[in-house]
Amino acid sequence: MLIPFEKLKSEFKRVLLSLNFEEGDAEQSATIFAENSRDGVYTHGLNRFPTFVQYVKDGLIIPNVRPTKEGGFGAIEQWDGHLGAGTLNATFCMDRAINLANENGIGCVAIKNTNHWMRGGTYGWQAAEAGMIGICFTNTIANMPPWGGIDARLGNNPLIIAVPRKDGHVVLDMAISQYSFGKLNLYKSKNEQLPLPGGYDKDGNLTTDPAAIIESLRPLPIGFWKGSGLSLVLDLLATVLSQGRSTADVTDGGSESGVSQVFICIKPNAGVRTEMIIETILDYTKSSRPEGEGKEILYPGENTLRTREKSLKEGVWVDEKIWAKVTQL
Amino acid sequence: MLIPFEKLKSEFKRVLLSLNFEEGDAEQSATIFAENSRDGVYTHGLNRFPTFVQYVKDGLIIPNVRPTKEGGFGAIEQWDGHLGAGTLNATFCMDRAINLANENGIGCVAIKNTNHWMRGGTYGWQAAEAGMIGICFTNTIANMPPWGGIDARLGNNPLIIAVPRKDGHVVLDMAISQYSFGKLNLYKSKNEQLPLPGGYDKDGNLTTDPAAIIESLRPLPIGFWKGSGLSLVLDLLATVLSQGRSTADVTDGGSESGVSQVFICIKPNAGVRTEMIIETILDYTKSSRPEGEGKEILYPGENTLRTREKSLKEGVWVDEKIWAKVTQL
Repeated sequence: MLIPFEKLKSEFKRVLLSLNFEEGDAEQSATIFAENSRDGVYTHGLNRFPTFVQYVKDGLIIPNVRPTKEGGFGAIEQWDGHLGAGTLNATFCMDRAINLANENGIGCVAIKNTNHWMRGGTYGWQAAEAGMIGICFTNTIANMPPWGGIDARLGNNPLIIAVPRKDGHVVLDMAISQYSFGKLNLYKSKNEQLPLPGGYDKDGNLTTDPAAIIESLRPLPIGFWKGSGLSLVLDLLATVLSQGRSTADVTDGGSESGVSQVFICIKPNAGVRTEMIIETILDYTKSSRPEGEGKEILYPGENTLRTREKSLKEGVWVDEKIWAKVTQL
Repeated sequence: MLIPFEKLKSEFKRVLLSLNFEEGDAEQSATIFAENSRDGVYTHGLNRFPTFVQYVKDGLIIPNVRPTKEGGFGAIEQWDGHLGAGTLNATFCMDRAINLANENGIGCVAIKNTNHWMRGGTYGWQAAEAGMIGICFTNTIANMPPWGGIDARLGNNPLIIAVPRKDGHVVLDMAISQYSFGKLNLYKSKNEQLPLPGGYDKDGNLTTDPAAIIESLRPLPIGFWKGSGLSLVLDLLATVLSQGRSTADVTDGGSESGVSQVFICIKPNAGVRTEMIIETILDYTKSSRPEGEGKEILYPGENTLRTREKSLKEGVWVDEKIWAKVTQL
């Protein structure tokens, strides 16, 4: 069913206030959850909200704490998130990175002891809205085997790269696993095969069967050995720069709390020449002949904007059962 | 056959001097070519050297030019490479980024009008040797279709991320295509199938047949749509930050010359705690049970070190035909 954006947001805010989040924090976090659903990232909007609430109730997410600065040198800073809401901590850190880049051309903020930031793209859009190139990534609990192994030892460690653009920012928002377990479960529940191989079955064969991957717990990293290496180095960067908890530590803790994140901003040359460069690159990419009828070549973030416009016009799509659950929280 | 490292290097240097490279530049570039073969990256060591020589003869690579600073603000700088050797320009830029990071915690150098840097990992090792986290990437000529398209409009835009480590740096060095055309041709020449799907055949089916991919010119980006987006944003960053030529411009020019590159360094906290963080992450990753007899879980760069040690002990492997060709240049 479809719900007006403002209604979705106010419902989230009501629940957050009941959990003793301060007015400003409740407003900000509710906005992010509602925007995630508005932009079509349902898994990290409404659908994830009940888990967020449970984490607050379990003391894994602590309301009303503020990040504190632990160190810094020049244009890099380290912060401690004190297990506050990941949405609020991440917004704060990207804002710091924007400020550092305004002062120094580039800035890097690392945070430890923070929590799941929901949709990483949120902070890419935030940087781009401020006219900045934004790069951010997070570690996660182990949910993917390293290349050559069968036990999960790597996180899917989402990586976001955003480039500001007049007619719609380019925002790449990708986890390092080919398909998330959320996606695998969705295909399984619909009894559908994945469009492309997404992992191994328990006999070690590459498969498009979501159930077989859920059983083997061997989802694929993007690019096989390449994504395995990329996930590992992102965890190294996040943990070394924040001096926080690695995927190993988070997994050892048993629940995905107290993760480490990095936010980098770079100030691009503003002006007509930069705008032309971006349009030339996008136009050139789109000039490739589509592989079939109705196929379209999109830049990262293009579909987000379309979904956003549709949601604001027609209402935000919600899963009725989850929506009912949230209204009763 | 096996050749002593010093012999390989001196042969490269002899040729470079004959092309009128100055003594210091010839020494530096010869060292990089020899080290690339020494480390097992034969495609960008000896095997690529004749192409490099031809590019110099064709005036696409210009000896003895020096990069000039075009702009800068705080910890970011823009340079013009004046079509000099990519190896020398890239070494220069990573050195600048190291200096900027030493002063500011982080530094970013973008360069336009440069040339193929051969093995991107070279500059990752350079940063790590200086105790820095190094991130660098380059655009290339279009050699990969965007997701949903059939005509090549994206480069394979190699991305390098290096983390300094006491007992061997972690250096991820990956192109955004699953297999390079060099790799595809190698498998084809041996009449072997790829171990994993590497592209589409001309009918649009995913295939492990290298000949079919060479025919269709549709190699896969890593992670399908994800790598397609990643390649695009890396080109945007390289071109916007350097104000140089995009993959579109380079492709339009007809030969892979005058590319754009970005070099970022971040200064990590040095000390025992950082060393422990890195070892914990690597040990944890390696604790995944291997998927079969003789399988091993390696961190990015681990195999490089092994090959390096072997090459220095036993000699550097060279393709006899290419070696004969180079000795006669």
